[in-house]
Amino acid sequence: MSALERLRVVLCAPSHPGNVGAAARAMQAMGLQRLVLVNPLRFPDPETSALAVGAAEILASAQVVTSLESALAGTVLAIGLSARPRQFAGAALPMRAAAHEALRFAHAGDVALVFGTEMSGLSNSELARCQIVATIPTTSTHASLNLAAAVQVAAYEIYVAASGGAVWAAPAFEPATHDEIEQLFAHGERTLIALNFLYPKHPRRLLPRLRRLFARARLEKEEVNILRGILARIDERLRHAERISEQ
Amino acid sequence: MSALERLRVVLCAPSHPGNVGAAARAMQAMGLQRLVLVNPLRFPDPETSALAVGAAEILASAQVVTSLESALAGTVLAIGLSARPRQFAGAALPMRAAAHEALRFAHAGDVALVFGTEMSGLSNSELARCQIVATIPTTSTHASLNLAAAVQVAAYEIYVAASGGAVWAAPAFEPATHDEIEQLFAHGERTLIALNFLYPKHPRRLLPRLRRLFARARLEKEEVNILRGILARIDERLRHAERISEQ
Repeated sequence: MSALERLRVVLCAPSHPGNVGAAARAMQAMGLQRLVLVNPLRFPDPETSALAVGAAEILASAQVVTSLESALAGTVLAIGLSARPRQFAGAALPMRAAAHEALRFAHAGDVALVFGTEMSGLSNSELARCQIVATIPTTSTHASLNLAAAVQVAAYEIYVAASGGAVWAAPAFEPATHDEIEQLFAHGERTLIALNFLYPKHPRRLLPRLRRLFARARLEKEEVNILRGILARIDERLRHAERISEQ
Repeated sequence: MSALERLRVVLCAPSHPGNVGAAARAMQAMGLQRLVLVNPLRFPDPETSALAVGAAEILASAQVVTSLESALAGTVLAIGLSARPRQFAGAALPMRAAAHEALRFAHAGDVALVFGTEMSGLSNSELARCQIVATIPTTSTHASLNLAAAVQVAAYEIYVAASGGAVWAAPAFEPATHDEIEQLFAHGERTLIALNFLYPKHPRRLLPRLRRLFARARLEKEEVNILRGILARIDERLRHAERISEQ
């Protein structure tokens, strides 16, 4: 399987059917095949097909899901496109650099390019699921790209990077999957609550901060195992202490 | 006058009003202001305005002319966009290289980016008026870009080239110092030993692995504080458990 085949384009809640079609056409021209739609307002739709010149197959095989979570299942890297790298995103890169990261990770597993709605882009909680925030440079943060235009530029950068003749070395270690990382965060949250370090009613910004840290690190499988091992040991000691104090 | 102001986008006989609007929006986001329309089928048009989000000024000042000849008046360089560099006398370049040429010449005078009709692109006689033919790489010569998508990619390459990569800044957080990070590692080591997770006589490769993870993340000051807070809470709970079991 080639690196480009490992890439999926994820559109979150697209509301204009024409944009989905134009995005598919952009993907087709740039060698991307896998389209995932999270809660599209209308799909399939005649306007989508009309604008997807030459890309009918991409639409026919498009996956429709009901959460970003499902759209990212099985990925080793998610790159969120945003005009405004906000505070709690992972690593913030211009799209050209992000394209190189996408290809580097595509040798290890599936990579998602995630796009937000036409009106407001990706929400903070959607960006929190991404390890990289990619920005397409524009004259100002007010000058936003149309959704299909953003997909076009991102797919173009991926394609140029892929065909640049450069040899992309896979990361030396096996990256953790989206699912493994989410399980780690869930485990971490439980343990921090048991430690009375995290108070669910007053979480401050603890979890987003930790998510951001580990997003920048791009966790590897073995690192997730080590961290879960530490968490399990803390859990065990806390349970042990409880049993003693109950005696 | 900046180099970007010397650039004009020329659309030859565009037939879909929406494309003209989307092209204007793409230009706006990438700092291009001058639009020239050669025999547009409909202009102005409500659909054009609807798609030109934020780019009303570009439409208002767009020039409408009746020949490519007039559209190119006063230019020092014309770059024709084509998916198929046909028998062509001038230089054929990928768009990225053409963008650098465009800027080089923009210091000397006006430069045109010329786009053909939606159906068939630039004709041979139109290409003959251009000194450079620029191609946006696609998977095959049959995979064509939508007109507005082609304008978007071309304008993006011009903008990235013009801003020399200095267009984008990551949000600034305060990095942790070397000493703060070393103190964190020392604290982490003590706590892992107290947890019986790390055995000093058989450390395996635990600490180097954790060092590597956090080195990749490039820790910030506040993150070090959070992690030390978690460690201090674990220490406290372990001491508490010890006191109870001693009673």
